[in-house]
Amino acid sequence: MKRPTFALLAAALGLAMAIPSHADEGMWMPSQLPSIGKSLREAGLQGNPADLADLTKAPLNAVVKVGGATGSFISGDGLVLTNHHVAFGIIQYNSNAQRDLIQNGFVSHQRTEELPANPDFRLRVTTGFDKVSDQVLAAAKGKTGRAYFDAIDAVSKSMVAECEREPGTRCSVVTMFYGRDFYLVKQLELRDVRLVYAPPRAIGNYGDEVDNFVWPRHAGDFTLLRAYVSPDGKPADYAKDNVPYHPPAHLQVAGDGVKEGDFVMLAGYPGITYRHRTAAEFADQVQWRLPTTVQVMQQLQHVIEDTGREDRQAAIRYASQLQSLKNNIKRFEGELDGLKRSDAVTVRRKDEDAMMAWLASQPQAGVLRPQIDEVNHLIAAGNAMRERDLLMGLMQSQTQLLRSAIMLQRLAHERGRPDAQREAGYQLRDEDLIAGTLRQVQRRYDPAVEKRLLTALLTRYQQLPDAQRLLEFDAAFGRTPDALARKLDQVYGATHLGDEATRLAWLKADPSSLDKTDDVLLAVAAQLQPALLRMEDERKSREGDLLRLRPAYMDALIAYREKQGRAVYPDANATLRVSYGKVTPLMARDAVSYEPVTTTAGIVEKNTNAPPFDAPRPLLDAIAKGDYDGYADEKTKLMPVDFLSNLDTTGGNSGSPVLNAKGELVGLNFDSNWEAVSASWMFDPRYKRAIHVDLRYMRWLMDKVYPAPELLKEMGVPAR
Amino acid sequence: MKRPTFALLAAALGLAMAIPSHADEGMWMPSQLPSIGKSLREAGLQGNPADLADLTKAPLNAVVKVGGATGSFISGDGLVLTNHHVAFGIIQYNSNAQRDLIQNGFVSHQRTEELPANPDFRLRVTTGFDKVSDQVLAAAKGKTGRAYFDAIDAVSKSMVAECEREPGTRCSVVTMFYGRDFYLVKQLELRDVRLVYAPPRAIGNYGDEVDNFVWPRHAGDFTLLRAYVSPDGKPADYAKDNVPYHPPAHLQVAGDGVKEGDFVMLAGYPGITYRHRTAAEFADQVQWRLPTTVQVMQQLQHVIEDTGREDRQAAIRYASQLQSLKNNIKRFEGELDGLKRSDAVTVRRKDEDAMMAWLASQPQAGVLRPQIDEVNHLIAAGNAMRERDLLMGLMQSQTQLLRSAIMLQRLAHERGRPDAQREAGYQLRDEDLIAGTLRQVQRRYDPAVEKRLLTALLTRYQQLPDAQRLLEFDAAFGRTPDALARKLDQVYGATHLGDEATRLAWLKADPSSLDKTDDVLLAVAAQLQPALLRMEDERKSREGDLLRLRPAYMDALIAYREKQGRAVYPDANATLRVSYGKVTPLMARDAVSYEPVTTTAGIVEKNTNAPPFDAPRPLLDAIAKGDYDGYADEKTKLMPVDFLSNLDTTGGNSGSPVLNAKGELVGLNFDSNWEAVSASWMFDPRYKRAIHVDLRYMRWLMDKVYPAPELLKEMGVPAR
Repeated sequence: MKRPTFALLAAALGLAMAIPSHADEGMWMPSQLPSIGKSLREAGLQGNPADLADLTKAPLNAVVKVGGATGSFISGDGLVLTNHHVAFGIIQYNSNAQRDLIQNGFVSHQRTEELPANPDFRLRVTTGFDKVSDQVLAAAKGKTGRAYFDAIDAVSKSMVAECEREPGTRCSVVTMFYGRDFYLVKQLELRDVRLVYAPPRAIGNYGDEVDNFVWPRHAGDFTLLRAYVSPDGKPADYAKDNVPYHPPAHLQVAGDGVKEGDFVMLAGYPGITYRHRTAAEFADQVQWRLPTTVQVMQQLQHVIEDTGREDRQAAIRYASQLQSLKNNIKRFEGELDGLKRSDAVTVRRKDEDAMMAWLASQPQAGVLRPQIDEVNHLIAAGNAMRERDLLMGLMQSQTQLLRSAIMLQRLAHERGRPDAQREAGYQLRDEDLIAGTLRQVQRRYDPAVEKRLLTALLTRYQQLPDAQRLLEFDAAFGRTPDALARKLDQVYGATHLGDEATRLAWLKADPSSLDKTDDVLLAVAAQLQPALLRMEDERKSREGDLLRLRPAYMDALIAYREKQGRAVYPDANATLRVSYGKVTPLMARDAVSYEPVTTTAGIVEKNTNAPPFDAPRPLLDAIAKGDYDGYADEKTKLMPVDFLSNLDTTGGNSGSPVLNAKGELVGLNFDSNWEAVSASWMFDPRYKRAIHVDLRYMRWLMDKVYPAPELLKEMGVPAR
Repeated sequence: MKRPTFALLAAALGLAMAIPSHADEGMWMPSQLPSIGKSLREAGLQGNPADLADLTKAPLNAVVKVGGATGSFISGDGLVLTNHHVAFGIIQYNSNAQRDLIQNGFVSHQRTEELPANPDFRLRVTTGFDKVSDQVLAAAKGKTGRAYFDAIDAVSKSMVAECEREPGTRCSVVTMFYGRDFYLVKQLELRDVRLVYAPPRAIGNYGDEVDNFVWPRHAGDFTLLRAYVSPDGKPADYAKDNVPYHPPAHLQVAGDGVKEGDFVMLAGYPGITYRHRTAAEFADQVQWRLPTTVQVMQQLQHVIEDTGREDRQAAIRYASQLQSLKNNIKRFEGELDGLKRSDAVTVRRKDEDAMMAWLASQPQAGVLRPQIDEVNHLIAAGNAMRERDLLMGLMQSQTQLLRSAIMLQRLAHERGRPDAQREAGYQLRDEDLIAGTLRQVQRRYDPAVEKRLLTALLTRYQQLPDAQRLLEFDAAFGRTPDALARKLDQVYGATHLGDEATRLAWLKADPSSLDKTDDVLLAVAAQLQPALLRMEDERKSREGDLLRLRPAYMDALIAYREKQGRAVYPDANATLRVSYGKVTPLMARDAVSYEPVTTTAGIVEKNTNAPPFDAPRPLLDAIAKGDYDGYADEKTKLMPVDFLSNLDTTGGNSGSPVLNAKGELVGLNFDSNWEAVSASWMFDPRYKRAIHVDLRYMRWLMDKVYPAPELLKEMGVPAR
């Protein structure tokens, strides 16, 4: 009965046991798949791993980037499958009081009914993925620190500019293994995207915040879009005469489903992971960064809540910031809990120690060891300033008026340079965004709250040891709580930046006028700017050296893993990756087992007729009718809704297609379980799970509940 | 993987399916066990069912009543095992700031260290259980209604008085099958009980309210007591020279444990169930009584909460009443949810319809059918007044001053009669209790809250149809909200009953003076009294007729079940019962499975170092050390804590011994799961579970954590 008894055994024995190495961990670059082909086939893949090696060829070129998430082509006429929550902006854009697509969903029965997305919505199809390590590294050769950073930045920008000369193309240079390898990614950008099919919110987002990060789950979190191009086949803005895009490949929807233990694989664009960070970075994250960030954020949370109790207007203005703080606190606490549960610090430390011990006996030790020592030195040096850096970061992200003043001063500074050399975020094309930010302040600012937030942050700053102090900040805010209070009262009493017109006037003002500003807050920002620029320079310098030196750590790790018989995938960086694994239950706690497939019975169980558990009447009626013929599980006769796998995913994998052993589409990734929040640092096979919509549920909804027979036919799985 | 797929299947198909009849349902009278011996042996019992037939003989006479709960003798020297929560009063009685047994637990290493219980604590050993149906029914023969009720009451009282002539004996007459059979129960009452061993609260009640009604559970909810008698072997009050009681039998602690699927049985004193109530009563409970009671109680809850927000003093005075309302609301909602989940109304209705259809073809139909019709008629007639009765009940249970006034008037009324004929609760021996109640009012009364509670209840009363109105109430409180408000202001402005001395003076006053009282609230109570007495008379009259007629319903049911091949147990009535079943997992919701055994790993997982999850350091150290030799599960090597079974239990079964197939003690019942709250009406095998301490956990604690080798030896399971 107790299936994976390992976790319990370890806990029962009170041991800090190593997490078992696990074939299913890994966000592989497609080009790596042939080299792990044996494992893939042993896991159950029926095709040839070599057919998955090129992300610009079928079937992987059917997987597209949708904003910060993922989607896939599922017909030759440009039909795209992604999550309801990924396409939510399009659904919202097309909704109004008369036609509420959020509430009611949307079914297009013919192409002319399909609804254009918001104009800034983009689909990107990867068309090139070329290794450019040699060129990039050649440009930086011999340099160190900031110069190394700038050289890589410059050569990347120039390669991107060259690549983007082709119309309708977006390019980027990405690094794999932290500076070891570089790739030029070329993507076709489709700008005319239309809404084809969306279930009602109460299906697409059944359970909402209550079920977020929760298994068992019962959401039909999917939406169908269609990409259009101009009649000559080129990317184009929306136009009535545009025609469906014919992708070079599309995925085939499976006729069958999956069950516990079945092989599955997934392709998508995972955003960021830290799995190959050093043991020191793991320790910093668990022992200092997460707990301290939570502590400081909770202090800010209490400031906003306390003020809000006295002042309803302030409470309303800071509601969104408060919610965001609480979400971050919750996520960080979840990450911390998970990393502790997995004993990540000890596990990573033992692993790194073993690697270094092994390395000592290897010929490359003489080259790698000093560089790895230097990596550790750089990390330790960065940590020496970590509390200051955290407080300075929050000072800018959590204030409205001070942030505006700093932004205006920085923009004035950048305007003195050619546009191409300006700092990202302060180029000509960013100025509209800056204006928007300055306008938003109006709805989100209250002087009393901002003063109290700054008091909290700067009081902590004043308590830092001298080595972490910044002369400009000490001069601006004093070194005692009294001086700070006086200064904040004076500045916030006198500044006119609380006035929207004034802020926007400064945005348009001659840059040189900001130096000699008569606004006291802008003057403070001018006073702080040298310190902020110095911190930025220190950061880039350190990052430059880390880009230069971390490849030695990665070389050692890759060699050590090879000796262990394991391949190494690069940490996630929003490029196309493939993971594989199987449909897997979860034993989350002592005596609590979660089965890997949910059923429509669970929708009825959870339903309260009030949001977020207000399944639409047509769905409840269809469940009561139980007409599941051709969709239900053959053995259990139950109608599946969502399923769970041990696939390796992270943020960005929303909308990723889940394929069976034959490469057919069986699921749609949309969430993880709460226990997996820490997987951005460590994949713990006991707890890491991904949550998918079962494609049989989607097909059943499209057949029996909100019928769209034309679309099912187009997808090659006609209604029964 | 999905083990009990029945529930899901039923839900998925949206069908109102009958709950499968289930061999494990049943709270059997021991005398019934031989007749179901085949089922018992098939379920796994290894002994002879006939050996369990007499509750005054071994081993069942080892099972004792402890207050409203259960315990059992586990040594020849009177050692008693029961729950920590059942013995909590004794632990509290022996605790003070210097010696906090609640916090630290208690281990007696020799008899002289054992601590006397609070003087009102009692253990009862059943020594006689004689069928007296003939005498009881003969006394009532030919009577109906109130006369039938009074005749049974009188003959019962006289049999009890006769039986209790034997010193140290407590007797009662109980009915089985609702008036069909009567038994005279004779119990030896042991008055010197001492505390022998208790774990700290953080073990005995690990998880407290958070884990209450929850599985998986990790509490060591056990305590050991010892019964003492005078040196001549007779029940006696505590005295230093008393000697341990030698029970006629004791249970043998098992050397092994149990695992999923193993046979288990349990003996104890379940309080009350309603399983054999009629279909109409099921419908009333689900469709009217539970939802209406919840609704009215929530109204009262809001009254107290609203007033409490304005007046902190009032909030404190009503904190306990508020908590009790909330607990009741929660429990009623749980019962309602469960009965709906099991579709109890439809299931019971179909079952009764089938019984009546079958009965129609039977020879006894001519006799039984008219009586069953009359039962249904009586129930319907009672329902006609149900809202009035509910409101009148709450008016007395939820007020302080009005209740006091009604109590004083009723006592004056009863004092006019010989003590033996007075209403229960108003006899001479009850007057101390009444005085205590009148005193307590002081800490629990606020005139504004009481007026608002009465306004809520009496406003509902005013809206009842005329047929449910009581002239006396209309006269006292008027028929409009305005009149009610004026009257309440006037009465509560003028009464002196808010004064403790005044209330107690009225208690001592000459009964006749209460008729011509000058206190306006006492005058109101005098005005209401005829109506209250009339309602009581109506109730007893209906109960008398139901006692007379329900046996026909039970006869039909028993005959119908016999035809189905099923035996019928009487509904629970706080007499000794036996149930049997097996160690069983729970599939509570779609895709959520609970395994039936928890382990010490779960204690560590739940532990937060703050109550209610603050496992003591010695326990955590022992878990970390993992010295489970001889106690852990042989196969999994995990140390069990609690286990789950499908045994049929209800309130009163706390402390019941759980025995294995050989009749050895393997567990100690202490709770149910939340899904089983509705089991007082319907045993749904999909959800009904009982929660037990695994005796291996108790033995391990007593061996390795808070050692008591002498006790383990006494129990026949010496320390390893």
